[in-house]
Amino acid sequence: MTVEDRKTLFLSACRGEPVERVPVWMMRQAGRYLPEYRAIRAKYSFLDVCKTPELAVEVSLQPYRRLGVDTVIVFSDILIPAEAMGLALELSDHGPVLPAPVRSFADLTRLHDFDPETETGFLMETLRQLVRETDGRVPVLGFAGAPWTVACYLVEGQTKAGFATIKQMLYAEPGLLQALLDRVARNTARYLQAQIAAGATAVQLFDTWAGELAREEFDAFALPALRRLIEELRADPRARTAPVILYLKAAHHLLESAVQAGADVLSLDWRVDLAEARQRWPHLALQGNVDPCVLLGPREKIEAAVRAAVAKTGGAGHILNLGHGILPQTPVENALAFVRAGQQAPVAAWTPMARSRADV
Amino acid sequence: MTVEDRKTLFLSACRGEPVERVPVWMMRQAGRYLPEYRAIRAKYSFLDVCKTPELAVEVSLQPYRRLGVDTVIVFSDILIPAEAMGLALELSDHGPVLPAPVRSFADLTRLHDFDPETETGFLMETLRQLVRETDGRVPVLGFAGAPWTVACYLVEGQTKAGFATIKQMLYAEPGLLQALLDRVARNTARYLQAQIAAGATAVQLFDTWAGELAREEFDAFALPALRRLIEELRADPRARTAPVILYLKAAHHLLESAVQAGADVLSLDWRVDLAEARQRWPHLALQGNVDPCVLLGPREKIEAAVRAAVAKTGGAGHILNLGHGILPQTPVENALAFVRAGQQAPVAAWTPMARSRADV
Repeated sequence: MTVEDRKTLFLSACRGEPVERVPVWMMRQAGRYLPEYRAIRAKYSFLDVCKTPELAVEVSLQPYRRLGVDTVIVFSDILIPAEAMGLALELSDHGPVLPAPVRSFADLTRLHDFDPETETGFLMETLRQLVRETDGRVPVLGFAGAPWTVACYLVEGQTKAGFATIKQMLYAEPGLLQALLDRVARNTARYLQAQIAAGATAVQLFDTWAGELAREEFDAFALPALRRLIEELRADPRARTAPVILYLKAAHHLLESAVQAGADVLSLDWRVDLAEARQRWPHLALQGNVDPCVLLGPREKIEAAVRAAVAKTGGAGHILNLGHGILPQTPVENALAFVRAGQQAPVAAWTPMARSRADV
Repeated sequence: MTVEDRKTLFLSACRGEPVERVPVWMMRQAGRYLPEYRAIRAKYSFLDVCKTPELAVEVSLQPYRRLGVDTVIVFSDILIPAEAMGLALELSDHGPVLPAPVRSFADLTRLHDFDPETETGFLMETLRQLVRETDGRVPVLGFAGAPWTVACYLVEGQTKAGFATIKQMLYAEPGLLQALLDRVARNTARYLQAQIAAGATAVQLFDTWAGELAREEFDAFALPALRRLIEELRADPRARTAPVILYLKAAHHLLESAVQAGADVLSLDWRVDLAEARQRWPHLALQGNVDPCVLLGPREKIEAAVRAAVAKTGGAGHILNLGHGILPQTPVENALAFVRAGQQAPVAAWTPMARSRADV
């Protein structure tokens, strides 16, 4: 696979078109398992790296150079928009902290709609540089948190404390939570539009904490905000054709609802059988779903897990990825084995997917 | 409902027989949300309370006295057998720590099969006293961790670090993990037999961390150990008729497998729709499944959640419970509202369950 083919390959996978092999990348691929990442983080804070395009470009490209992954995802954090909306934000490798979380309608008035080009201009500049650095031939991914997951941080202030505060808001003040989700969805739509305008080939929405909700709650709160976000995003002609990837963790009970969000690609964890997902939603491309713990070794289990994942989809309409972020203690050679095994995994004879959004 | 009826009611619910109302209790009902529990814990450590029958009896009875719950569950911890097998154990309200976890076959030889009557005699004595204190008319529940969940603690040493170590063992040394699960299953079977012999009406197995596994891994490791445990438990004539309740958290993707473990009652969290579970497994009684966050208030949402849960099963073959342990910050009056709402929830006209184990 030459460098030139990577963007075509990725878009073909998102659209369920014939591919020679699956594209491969890893969530959190720019991360602590890489010595060159640790070297930069030894000198700069997480937020400094996010906000300094030269540094963000460098760490975004590290896994591409070292492992030959098939996408470059921009280095950032899902709470960058929260800060742009006016909330103080502290980030570390141990997770984000919002010292003044949103707990009331009065708190909500502290949030303002932000202009992504000016207030998160560093991210747009990083994306533009990444496109230039890769000659526009490698897919560059933008991303954001899904409204529910962002709201979890905004309301809880941190995730270590569990989800009791936001659920209490859901039960006691559903209108407040809905107003917050609306606000996040609207700002996220514009934020992702700006990322696509800056050169992002596709965007991923992280709904990491969706799995905490009962399905009725997901349907009443998280899903409408997701749908609105994706609809508003696509209302921008510049964003209409960019694939939207929706990642959910531990959300087996929500998938029938989650597919209604309107994403092009569903990114799943190891709790979902990819063969079953392909059968149930033949019109959707799938991303995933190897357990990041598999990458702790041994090598033959990594290769077996990769082959099993690709065999379950046949390879078409499949972007190989992990089910969650790569673990900091992963040996680099194991990450490389994952990528290589994915790029070499045999792909079954192509059959058209039932119906893609492009056909609509 | 008079006191005398509680044991009959509970056993009827476990067997899917006609009931006037659902029995109600709460996981971790003897816990920090109760001021009288905190008063005891201010003077004694968690392990001291577990190992001192007078104290364990007192805290086990507190929720029965205060809230009128329909079962008394013995106050203990799922790692008591780990200590009895020879592992050092430190417990706090923040979770257990095993300073010398099991990581190798050599570590496995440090574990010994234990005699529950002598080495965990304090628990059996607590059970006998609880039966006496309640005149044998309230169901007294024993419990243990399921093999996979216990093994998570034995291998990880603590749960805060995640599950990378035990999964690495699963991939790299499956024989070691299987030997460990076998050992835990065998000892747990005898431990539960002793609890039933000491007067436990039923026993609950906690497979709290099952949901971390992919279904193929659950089928290959956790499920065989569960099946063996339940089979060995029932090989004891004293234990044959005591209902076995299997609790799983965040395990929607595993339920089709979990029902094969052979338990009489499946205890589910809010991620599972009870109506769907009843439809799919009409021969199983169900326990659950209100989100403990609902109990943070408001009152009308607690009552609505209870009525919705009971409506989904119709009430027969249903033990109302939470989907996970009651939260320490729960107001006592809300816990009481949950119990009362459950005890007053209307029950639909009885129809026989498809087939119960008793019919086999």
